[in-house]
Amino acid sequence: MPRLAFLGPRATFTEQALRSLPESAGAELVPCAGTPAVLAAVRTGSVDAGCVPIENSVEGAVPAVLDGLVADPPLVIVREAVVAVRFAVLVRPGTALADVKTVASHPHAIAQTRGWLAERLPDADVLLSTSTAEAAAQVARGEFDAAVAAPLAGEEHRLDVLVDDIADNPGAVTRFALVAPPGPLPAPTGHDRTTIAATTQNRPGALLGLLTELAVRGIDLTRIESRPIKNRHAEYWFHLDCTGHAAEPAMGEALAALHRRCDFVRFLGSYPRAGNGAAQPGAGTATPVVGVGDAADFAAADEWLAGVRAGSLA
Amino acid sequence: MPRLAFLGPRATFTEQALRSLPESAGAELVPCAGTPAVLAAVRTGSVDAGCVPIENSVEGAVPAVLDGLVADPPLVIVREAVVAVRFAVLVRPGTALADVKTVASHPHAIAQTRGWLAERLPDADVLLSTSTAEAAAQVARGEFDAAVAAPLAGEEHRLDVLVDDIADNPGAVTRFALVAPPGPLPAPTGHDRTTIAATTQNRPGALLGLLTELAVRGIDLTRIESRPIKNRHAEYWFHLDCTGHAAEPAMGEALAALHRRCDFVRFLGSYPRAGNGAAQPGAGTATPVVGVGDAADFAAADEWLAGVRAGSLA
Amino acid sequence: MPRLAFLGPRATFTEQALRSLPESAGAELVPCAGTPAVLAAVRTGSVDAGCVPIENSVEGAVPAVLDGLVADPPLVIVREAVVAVRFAVLVRPGTALADVKTVASHPHAIAQTRGWLAERLPDADVLLSTSTAEAAAQVARGEFDAAVAAPLAGEEHRLDVLVDDIADNPGAVTRFALVAPPGPLPAPTGHDRTTIAATTQNRPGALLGLLTELAVRGIDLTRIESRPIKNRHAEYWFHLDCTGHAAEPAMGEALAALHRRCDFVRFLGSYPRAGNGAAQPGAGTATPVVGVGDAADFAAADEWLAGVRAGSLA
Amino acid sequence: MPRLAFLGPRATFTEQALRSLPESAGAELVPCAGTPAVLAAVRTGSVDAGCVPIENSVEGAVPAVLDGLVADPPLVIVREAVVAVRFAVLVRPGTALADVKTVASHPHAIAQTRGWLAERLPDADVLLSTSTAEAAAQVARGEFDAAVAAPLAGEEHRLDVLVDDIADNPGAVTRFALVAPPGPLPAPTGHDRTTIAATTQNRPGALLGLLTELAVRGIDLTRIESRPIKNRHAEYWFHLDCTGHAAEPAMGEALAALHRRCDFVRFLGSYPRAGNGAAQPGAGTATPVVGVGDAADFAAADEWLAGVRAGSLA
Repeated sequence: MPRLAFLGPRATFTEQALRSLPESAGAELVPCAGTPAVLAAVRTGSVDAGCVPIENSVEGAVPAVLDGLVADPPLVIVREAVVAVRFAVLVRPGTALADVKTVASHPHAIAQTRGWLAERLPDADVLLSTSTAEAAAQVARGEFDAAVAAPLAGEEHRLDVLVDDIADNPGAVTRFALVAPPGPLPAPTGHDRTTIAATTQNRPGALLGLLTELAVRGIDLTRIESRPIKNRHAEYWFHLDCTGHAAEPAMGEALAALHRRCDFVRFLGSYPRAGNGAAQPGAGTATPVVGVGDAADFAAADEWLAGVRAGSLA
Repeated sequence: MPRLAFLGPRATFTEQALRSLPESAGAELVPCAGTPAVLAAVRTGSVDAGCVPIENSVEGAVPAVLDGLVADPPLVIVREAVVAVRFAVLVRPGTALADVKTVASHPHAIAQTRGWLAERLPDADVLLSTSTAEAAAQVARGEFDAAVAAPLAGEEHRLDVLVDDIADNPGAVTRFALVAPPGPLPAPTGHDRTTIAATTQNRPGALLGLLTELAVRGIDLTRIESRPIKNRHAEYWFHLDCTGHAAEPAMGEALAALHRRCDFVRFLGSYPRAGNGAAQPGAGTATPVVGVGDAADFAAADEWLAGVRAGSLA
Repeated sequence: MPRLAFLGPRATFTEQALRSLPESAGAELVPCAGTPAVLAAVRTGSVDAGCVPIENSVEGAVPAVLDGLVADPPLVIVREAVVAVRFAVLVRPGTALADVKTVASHPHAIAQTRGWLAERLPDADVLLSTSTAEAAAQVARGEFDAAVAAPLAGEEHRLDVLVDDIADNPGAVTRFALVAPPGPLPAPTGHDRTTIAATTQNRPGALLGLLTELAVRGIDLTRIESRPIKNRHAEYWFHLDCTGHAAEPAMGEALAALHRRCDFVRFLGSYPRAGNGAAQPGAGTATPVVGVGDAADFAAADEWLAGVRAGSLA
Repeated sequence: MPRLAFLGPRATFTEQALRSLPESAGAELVPCAGTPAVLAAVRTGSVDAGCVPIENSVEGAVPAVLDGLVADPPLVIVREAVVAVRFAVLVRPGTALADVKTVASHPHAIAQTRGWLAERLPDADVLLSTSTAEAAAQVARGEFDAAVAAPLAGEEHRLDVLVDDIADNPGAVTRFALVAPPGPLPAPTGHDRTTIAATTQNRPGALLGLLTELAVRGIDLTRIESRPIKNRHAEYWFHLDCTGHAAEPAMGEALAALHRRCDFVRFLGSYPRAGNGAAQPGAGTATPVVGVGDAADFAAADEWLAGVRAGSLA
């Protein structure tokens, strides 16, 4: 039975994300305390893969995930999940809103419900927990009156949803990544994402040169973030999410170009994009990167180049 | 007396950063609970300016600061501070390491000292506080045995430094920004930074076009981050830190170009760069952006263009 | 009465081009021997302007025109004309094709009718003249039997058109430029062209940088040519034709940028484009350069920038 | 015995250029009337290769060469020669300068000696010939008193050099190309040039995109020229000379990229660069294109990419 770690405890948004992935079917799900612990469990081989938040997270320190991914030994993302963030007020059965004197949650969840709390529970003490699920557990144990957490945490700890959907900005989503040791890449689906981290020389135009390598090959960028390199002043890792798959010629050529241009480049995975229009895993075949060249264009150009080099110009 | 807010409580790294700035001399320093509260105090005018972490923060939710800066009404950064992050174990006088059964701190501080804690206090319960300074206050009140915090918090709460410099990665720094309502810009020092946020159409090459506007004018990028726009799926604010000052011609032309090209651009301040080689405020005059053109080159080009348009080619 | 020089003798394609321009109405048209002589006449002031071929010419050495334009003192193009190149066989009245033993023309005209001559006059001697019009004059004087020239030359020298439209590639056109000393620019028509010559440092990417200055400002390039700089090995003038007018903000900013970036830049005129869709001179007002910004976008951006610099962010 | 055509007649600068190439040793040199005739002789196979002027020519219509190279069937450049252009006044033995009443030459040679002729032979009639060598032949036959031509033409026709080095701009050079049917490419020497012609869609930025494909791969451009496509209004062939050789990985990848991006791309040869620092043919091995990546960098990147795709990240 495969073992999959996740940012625990049980009933967090990360567990919810992991359960949405086909890999979780029939797997043992192992909660870990903190994203570094998830990554460490994958690196040591005590689990087969691990699920961590990667963008816009409620509870996880996403910068820590980015920094952790570029550490050694290498890890790659093999799947992503996008989960709608939905906060509820969870209480023990019988508790009314007027009874709530203390409310607990993870600091980020409190930040995202601050307006609602100020308006509806202005007199309650707000207390910090290490996760939304831990807050629910604390409520179940009677330590606090209410928790701000996912409804899933209510099911886990037999709490009632007193008020649902209390986020100040409804509609927020969080992206999660399933991370594994390097191995055969997920098959291209025609609707994939590739994640890369790279360092460049600290000189004007270095980032522009890097992005040009992607743009000339028709590869679109969906996220970029600079993270300071530990212990190196004013040097950065650039974290990039791009459209396309390393098995496709445009992305392959772009990756090789980054390898030549950058001081260091870390391949962090090619995997199906979650959300609108994503092909079902395994259902597709390698299909085009839109833009300057699809696979057939690359094949035609390579054939032409072979002719040029052999001296036969059709 | 000017009033300056900061991410409280007292004795946080943010207060330490604020005290390092000349603006704090003779000012009343007002702690606020959370960076949104700091920004709100500046926006309502209850303080003159506010200090918040902006990059690589120990205790602040930096993404929240970025999101908060682009909200309305406008705010600008008028000064930055870079503070070395230094963690100490603070205890009540007389406590020995062997006596420490509970240790408290902000989650991010705990994340950055996890290795030391696992090795030297493997059996202690680790507890979360809303800030490193609050953890110190809790130790002073006898709620916990030890706090992981800045030495400044020890002075504030009359605690002893039991062990100093326990960060797993010594040498980390955090950048802080002093934020104020729009007003006359700090004078150029020749060693300035300009912060911008911009949104672009969600199409291939849009970010490359934006960065090209900077690069052709010799402006270097020192940080870039994409932040999802609230409630707008797959749309982003790009947060950019650049070298140079809006009063200089190269930066002025680049800002105007971004205004034309981007769906929305938010000017977030031009201010002296902290750290190595920074000119003292007021000591310099507008000096060149290195690269394609300094102020004299711009003046010469403008004079030539005026001649072209008037029909007099020298 | 204005005096306008042209690449003579009378009845060349250049005279035909000049007569198509409004400036020729009521002017004295002065033939000159060679394009250097035309440019010299303009420079010395013995004429008010001069007409020379600039692209794809039949009889003129166009490279010589490009080299001549960048010499001193400065000259600018104030108007262009596009003329369909049409070759006829001109003979004295009564001459039949079978009578033609000798045929004369300018070398370039012969090159463009070589196929026809080989097929229809395979046994005739082909002789060189200094221009198509001179060949017609020589036929009129009885020196040769036939000339390959414009029908206009037949009218001038009272010759008959024996065969018309004998070009091997029918449909060719030649561009001509009316060149004058610097002075007030022709008013923008919304459908203008700007001609520039520039030199750059001889290093990789220098030309790319130059073209990027145009592209980021939405300016399109309609012609480019590199010409060796006399007496400087491996250094080049780049001759560029662009859409837009120097009075427009996008072009103005681009010109100033080239002035900063290039070793030397020579403004060679902004003038109405000939051909399809050209606005009539004087009929239009300054209208937008398509692309990144029209004049209203520039005005809005400048106003915003002024606010940024003054500290008032609306 | 190999047969090599050249732009005749005998004793032109083109013959001089051809004789400077190792291929001419032991070959039969065949003069042709006009560059189209040279290219046609190569295409039909009546000669093995042909020599034509390609840049800054004295006597040849270089635009005609560019247009002729992109016609069908394909031809490639296999060698270049750079020849110093040196004009002399050639006369029959015994002729003094005061005796010269008529002087003949090719129009381009006359253009390049116009200043000298105006000053030293102000009263002589200047007459056109089809080439500098033909002018010398005409002088030898007694048709004219003097010819402006290369000293080589004097040797050929037993004329004396009356005055040497009369060019108005001494130091001019002309580039010549040896053109052959497609076949095995000349071996890379580490100091090569590649010539390409390409057409792009007629839209803003198309040329910039094309040049970016070269620049991101560290390939430098040494010449660019736009030539109108026959019978297609406002459409152009771009003729490009670049540093590097098609057998090298950077150039190979760039050529394939142009094949994908351009409507049409014509490979016109990879061959040793003439002039300063050129490696001797056959003496070198494939050595680096300076810039983003030499062959070893490409090999390392390809190996890394293979690992990425196979799932083994070292």
